[in-house]
Amino acid sequence: MKDIYSDEYFMRMAFQEAMNAYEEDEIPVGAVIVSNNRIIARAHNLTETLTDVTAHAELQAITAAADFLGGKYLKNCTLYVTLEPCNMCAGALYWSQIDRIVFGAEDLHRGYRKFNTPLHPQTEVSYGIMAEESSNLIQEFFKNKRR
Amino acid sequence: MKDIYSDEYFMRMAFQEAMNAYEEDEIPVGAVIVSNNRIIARAHNLTETLTDVTAHAELQAITAAADFLGGKYLKNCTLYVTLEPCNMCAGALYWSQIDRIVFGAEDLHRGYRKFNTPLHPQTEVSYGIMAEESSNLIQEFFKNKRR
Repeated sequence: MKDIYSDEYFMRMAFQEAMNAYEEDEIPVGAVIVSNNRIIARAHNLTETLTDVTAHAELQAITAAADFLGGKYLKNCTLYVTLEPCNMCAGALYWSQIDRIVFGAEDLHRGYRKFNTPLHPQTEVSYGIMAEESSNLIQEFFKNKRR
Repeated sequence: MKDIYSDEYFMRMAFQEAMNAYEEDEIPVGAVIVSNNRIIARAHNLTETLTDVTAHAELQAITAAADFLGGKYLKNCTLYVTLEPCNMCAGALYWSQIDRIVFGAEDLHRGYRKFNTPLHPQTEVSYGIMAEESSNLIQEFFKNKRR
């Protein structure tokens, strides 16, 4: 039997969070953090709603996951996020010592890889799952904004 | 008459926040954000108390200042912080478009300059005020930890 708790499964959950952001007129980026096949944090970008540039999906998810775990470090956790993290979020992920990051779409302008911003040496990264849907959703958001 | 609202004056306020962190058994880093010679946010590192790696003084100060101003962007604001910001905080400061950053001690290991992490092109930076006191306080904190 195929494991239902695949990366695709959890990225769909992150994408659902991005859809929630879209419906709230926020730049549509969503994230979940998973520990032992259990979602322990869900978040989406809320920078407009909270009037706070730090309210990216990843930062909120890190805070919520640490709260759930009762510890600062996200060992044995995986972050699923629809867009490549920015420098701020990569810096936070560095401090969290998270095990694994799976992101959807690449962000060639503001993504952390452009700047070679380091993650924790223990952190594994993969990307590309639901990249097209995640990228299209963001493009659609900005197209509507320009109208 | 000398302007009493000097960089030294506001850095002393940030240092007082670092002292508050020290007394709470937190890595002693403090920050204030100033707009028109008025302190609109004060914060100190609370990563242990809040069990949250994102609870650096700078991030909390950015959130509090934006809340005070009712807008996300910290134009015409200066951040005073006792230690050079890390990548996470530099990334947040980038998004905030803050006018000016004054930091005390350099952080050659974890500071954003080591990684060439960009700030906003509009942001001016200076450093060195109360650098020795700020650095000594952190060293004293870790010396006590090792005891």
